[in-house]
Parts: sequence; C-alpha cells; structure tokens
Amino acid sequence: MLRSKLHAPMLREDPADAEIASHRLMLRAGLIRQSANGLWSWLPLGKRVLDAVARIVREEMIHAGAEEVLAPIMQPEDLWRRSGRWDSFGAETLRARDRRDRGLVFSPTAEEAMVELLRADGALGWRQLPLVLFQTQWKFRDEIRPRFGVMRAREFLMKDAYSFDIDEAAARRSYAGMFAAYARIFRRLGLAAVPVRAATGAMGGLESHEFHVLAETGESAVAYDPRALTETDPAVAMGLWASADGENPGMPRPERIETARGIEIGHIFLLGDRYTRALGLEVIGPDGQRSFPVMGCYGIGISRIVAALVEACHDARGIRWPRSVAPFAATVLPLVPDEAAMSAARQIHDALEAGGHSCLLDDRDVSAGIKLAEADLLGLPLRIVVGPKGLARGRIEVTDRATGDLREIPVGADMIQVLGDWL
Amino acid sequence: MLRSKLHAPMLREDPADAEIASHRLMLRAGLIRQSANGLWSWLPLGKRVLDAVARIVREEMIHAGAEEVLAPIMQPEDLWRRSGRWDSFGAETLRARDRRDRGLVFSPTAEEAMVELLRADGALGWRQLPLVLFQTQWKFRDEIRPRFGVMRAREFLMKDAYSFDIDEAAARRSYAGMFAAYARIFRRLGLAAVPVRAATGAMGGLESHEFHVLAETGESAVAYDPRALTETDPAVAMGLWASADGENPGMPRPERIETARGIEIGHIFLLGDRYTRALGLEVIGPDGQRSFPVMGCYGIGISRIVAALVEACHDARGIRWPRSVAPFAATVLPLVPDEAAMSAARQIHDALEAGGHSCLLDDRDVSAGIKLAEADLLGLPLRIVVGPKGLARGRIEVTDRATGDLREIPVGADMIQVLGDWL
Repeated sequence: MLRSKLHAPMLREDPADAEIASHRLMLRAGLIRQSANGLWSWLPLGKRVLDAVARIVREEMIHAGAEEVLAPIMQPEDLWRRSGRWDSFGAETLRARDRRDRGLVFSPTAEEAMVELLRADGALGWRQLPLVLFQTQWKFRDEIRPRFGVMRAREFLMKDAYSFDIDEAAARRSYAGMFAAYARIFRRLGLAAVPVRAATGAMGGLESHEFHVLAETGESAVAYDPRALTETDPAVAMGLWASADGENPGMPRPERIETARGIEIGHIFLLGDRYTRALGLEVIGPDGQRSFPVMGCYGIGISRIVAALVEACHDARGIRWPRSVAPFAATVLPLVPDEAAMSAARQIHDALEAGGHSCLLDDRDVSAGIKLAEADLLGLPLRIVVGPKGLARGRIEVTDRATGDLREIPVGADMIQVLGDWL
Repeated sequence: MLRSKLHAPMLREDPADAEIASHRLMLRAGLIRQSANGLWSWLPLGKRVLDAVARIVREEMIHAGAEEVLAPIMQPEDLWRRSGRWDSFGAETLRARDRRDRGLVFSPTAEEAMVELLRADGALGWRQLPLVLFQTQWKFRDEIRPRFGVMRAREFLMKDAYSFDIDEAAARRSYAGMFAAYARIFRRLGLAAVPVRAATGAMGGLESHEFHVLAETGESAVAYDPRALTETDPAVAMGLWASADGENPGMPRPERIETARGIEIGHIFLLGDRYTRALGLEVIGPDGQRSFPVMGCYGIGISRIVAALVEACHDARGIRWPRSVAPFAATVLPLVPDEAAMSAARQIHDALEAGGHSCLLDDRDVSAGIKLAEADLLGLPLRIVVGPKGLARGRIEVTDRATGDLREIPVGADMIQVLGDWL
C-alpha cells in the first residue's frame, strides 16, 4: 500500500485532552478520531488492527467449538422485562422508543437474545449440548464518564459468547474450555493477562473471572500470585489466588503476592439457569426429563484490547505493534525522492506483498525526518530504510521496532528471503 | 464441519407468516430467526453467507481504491442538526437520549459522520483526492411495515461508501468508478442487476442510480432497455434507459423495453457539496483556493442481498446457493450410519477441507430421506451421497444443486481431484 493513498492523518503534537498513552498515540498515529463524547470513528489503520484482533478472537472461539451467530443490536423491551433486566440494568443502557412507541434497548450484552434465539425452536435435546454461540457485535453502555479514547468508550466492539449445558458439572467444563481459549487469545495477542476471580455482580451466577492486562494506567488494582502470569494449565491458573482488592474469601493466600494496576479486557461468568429459567428455554435429558440449561457467558472487549495493546507496547517515540495485530507487517522508507531509491523501495514493497507480507511504502515527497518520525509513531514491526548512502554501498537498513535490532542487508536477490525470515 | 455440531434447526413445514420464497427458505433452512418486528438474528449458516457477501463487497471496494473505516452507530444530534437532517429524516430514524439528555440517532446513513471524520483534521489537500471511505456497518430505519424477513428489516447490514473530489468532473469519475465496482460485485455474486436512473430524493444531489435484481417478488416496478443486463462497459450501462415507473425525462426511449419486478440492492448518489458545505469541510486546490469537496455516496444492502440471492436462486425443493457465497462448498451424506459409509464420508470430507473446500458432513443418525430433503433445502453447491448400493460398486454419487447434473465417481485416489475440479 502506498502511504500517499492511505488516509492516516498523523499529529506531531500530543492532543491536550489525551491522558494516557494509548489515547494519545492512537490519535497521533491516525488510528481513531472522536465523533462525540465516548463515540469513536476508526480510520483505516485503526480498522486494520481492530479486524486483526477480532480475527484472532474468532479463530480461537471456533477452535474451542463455538459457533458464530449475530443477534440484533436493538432488542425489544418485552424480552428484557421477561429476564427482569429492563429495570435492573439502569441508566447504563441506552433506550429508544420506535414509531409504534415500543421500547428498544441498544444491547449492552445478549443473554436474553441468545436464549430467545434458541427457544424459538423449542426445547433443546441433550445431544445438542454443550452448545456455545458467540458473536462480535457493537455494544453500548452509557458510561458516566467516558474517557481514555476507545479504552472506556460508550459504544464498543465486544465478542460475547454464551454456553448452554445440561447441568452444572458440564457447564463448569464449558467454562474451563472458554478460560483456556482466553489464555490462548491473549498469548497470540502478545498480552500478559492475569485471571482474577471476580464478583458476579449484576450478571448473577456461580463463578466469574476477569482478565487484566497489567499496565500502569489501568483503572483496577490487582493483587495476584505471580505464577498466574506464566501458568499454562488453565485448571491450575483458574485456581490461583488473584483479586482486585487484596481480599479473596475462601482461597488460601499464597506466600508471595504482587500488586499492579490492570486493564480489564475480558470477563467470564458461570451464570447458572437464571436466564434459561426466566425465559423458559428447556433441555430434554436422556431420560426424557426437562430442565433449564446451565449457562455461561464470556466477553472480550475487542476495541478495548486495541488500546490495551498500545498501553502494553509503546515507547517514547510511539507504538510498537506485536506482529500478530500490526496494521502492516513492514514499512519501506525511501529517504530521498530520487528514482534509484524509489525504484529499490518499490521492488522491496512489491516482493513483500507478493510474499504475503503487508507493506506500507512511504512514497510521499516529505522530509526524511518526517518519514522516520511517523514510522516510529505508527510502529510497524519492521522498518526498511532505503537511504542514499546505503544505496551507494548497495545496502538497505532494516530495524525491528520492538527490539531496536538493526541490520544492513545487501540489495539483491536474497534480500526478500532475509526480510521474510525476519517477519 | 459435522452437521451434528452445527446449530441449524430446519423446519419441515412452511412458516405461516412467510410471504416470499427467501423469507420462507431462510427460516426453513435455519439461516435466520426473528427477534422482534423487523429485527433478526443470524444463525451460523446465515452468518456464513452474510460474511461471504460482505467479503466480496469489501474486496471490490478496496480494488476500486476505497479505504475501510468505521463510524459509530449512534451519532450525536448536533451533527445531524448541522446538516439539517435531524428534522428532515423524520420518523424513519430511531432516536434516543443519553443519560445527559443529549440526543443520539442510530445512523441510517453516514454522510455527516464521514464528513466530520475528515473535517476533524482540517482542510483536505487536493493531492489527497479522490478519497473514498467505506464501512460495513449496521443501520436502522424504522420502516412502517417491516416484512419479508431480512429483505425489509428495520436493522440491516449495509456497505456505505463516500467519495470526496475537488470538483464535479472528478466526482463524476469517482461515481463511474463505483458504478463499475457495483457491476463487478453483482457479477461475482451471480446476480443479474439492472442499473436504473433514480430520483435523488431525501439525499439531495445531481445524479443517482439504483441497482435492481429482477425477481417476481420484488417491491419495485422496473422498465428497462434489455441491454442493461448484459452491457459490461459501465460508461455505456450508466446511460442506458431504465426507470422505475416507465418515465425517464431527458433520455431517449429505446425501441425495446422490458418490464419486470425488481429488488433494490444498491443505490448510489452524486451528492454535490451539500454536506461538505453544511458541515464546513474544505479542500485546498493547487492554486491555494479553498472550496467544498464534491461528494458521492454508495450503498449496498448486504443483509438484503442474502435474501435477494435466495429469491434469484431457489426451486421448489429449496435454495441453490451460488458457489461464491454458499455457506459450505459441499455436503457429504452417508445415507446409512454403518461404519463403511461413515468412514468413506469422513475421508471425502477431510480431503475436501484439506483442499480448502468447506464441507458439511451429515453425521447424524437420521433417515436418508431427512438428510436428502435437508440437503436440497439448504442447497449447498455440491451434494455427495455415499449410499450402500453405490459403495458396494465402489462409487459415490455427486449432484450439482444448481444444474441437477449427476455423476457417479469411483471411490479412490482420483476422487478428490475430480470433486475439486467440479468445485
């Protein structure tokens, strides 16, 4: 992709109202723009990252056996009345009345909709379970104080999954399966996330974990057993001591505890049969007996993860995207606009793209200083500089944005092979 | 994918309230379920088709030079007041008031949001133009009479694109480029779409075309020069006589006119500078002069296209998906649940999937009659029957759902090669 054809307005100065790094850097690098209080537009570069995060989450949901569906954004009042949440959800929900004066709510979560989607076809059969449905859909929560860019927006993209099981034991297996899927997702995203046992709150239910990315600018206080960051067995990880507040009733406190600030990027609940019972979704067991399926629900904030990634991956000069979600894999900077440099840059760009590596070629007639500063700000994993001095010696300069590693590579047939290996 | 693991509840009987084929068949084949009046959920099979349509539209938008962005669904009242549409759009828009009593509208279209997204960074430079932004985002229009399933829903998925140019001549080139992209999209979808010159209506503007799929159940009357269905040069196709009502002021009426019913699946407008002027987005020309960019906007109803495809591609037994959007490329039906048939079926399924062809294996313990009827209803392009008689002769039976062509293929190493060629 040519930089001159990409709508990515970058800002040289820090925006005055941006308090945390992700907010500041996402604005400066031209990823997002504010549309209104807590409402954000995604520019092309931001949309590419958002898509990359959503893709990884989707792949892991499908890998875990979940099926992708889509519930409507606006949901009818009567459905929310039947679950009792029309009243209990309160001022956070955005409500509207349609032309027939019927109430609608911009779905902040979709337990009701998913139960109703199944109930429309009558009772489930036990052979159909476990059944896990998920969607990636926009949600709205009317935050009292939206802030920090897309970190705490009112409208946000969320992956929400819902499991249905014949009994609590089976539901706990689904819950553990989703817990494991979340660990895989965060690993692929390059995020160190601490699972924290959480209160079940307004959702109700039997069990709950939050997942927190550790970051100084996080809004939550997290106290945790440091093994939670490296434990790969989900059964063990689920039982490790971690809390938001230093208390964890009923769990033995480990010898060593670390404390940090955390950004909540995921939240899972073992719900019980509250929603299936309220809305009348039944399952017929192998013995012909009817019961209410036991549910779990599993949320990940897709748009918030983009901000959390920037919080976790940046330095004084800008963002340092992990390879798995970078908007482009590499950028090529011809430092001077002469034909030799542009031709070499185009050759590298085309060869990388042909090899399946997305590449941004800065073909603009701007100074080398601007190109280098904007490349640091945007933070694509590999920066390939085609400079006049290097080119005279038949060399290009390749820098890994994350590590700072710098290599000179001879221009020639092997060049792409070397770059491809690095990517 | 195993059919037993797929949540796709199929109905044997026609739903009483479904008036047209797509509504009936999408319900029966387990693609969609109604959530409330004009609000629909997409089940896994429907979601796969919706994604396939969206992917084709996205690829052609990017091929045409458009950049993907995302505007928020809820948009602030003051933005819509500045364009004058807070009042003019009327009862079709769904409005809400947030906790601070500020008005929000569930975006039925996004001219204001896209202009504002650009305006946030000051005046455009002429070198940045032409600039085309697009998104695939949910829209809400509070129809007086929602009906026909997702064909006329209140909440629907739309691709909307917005072009910005330095003057009207350049804007007409962008318009023609999008017109050509639409023709490519409909060709890839296997839809014969007639471009019809349309009134510019509430959007305002200089020029407009609708795209109609011809179908008996269409809600529009279309009169057109039959060359409009086969003309591949967009410059010629744009100028062909076609109307919704038999009138086409200022255009020479051709000798031959055909009349039909049409489903509107796309609508494009050359808008002029109404929105850029109202919202104050400027472009600085090569001479340093400021002016208001000339806009075009380009909509395609993604969710409606799914219904239009079913209207265009079905028979008495069910849907006949075009290969480009089918939820799976093939289905394998072991007619009896014995181990030989299941093993052969699994082998075919796995080999097709390994070759990149998505495949649904009906592994359920249900009668051959149910498997065959449901395969016809769902209408995947290729049906592969593994029956006891055929298997005894070392043969499987392959049927093309669209043409009815049937072939017997010997079980063996070449089998997948033959199937792959067919797909």
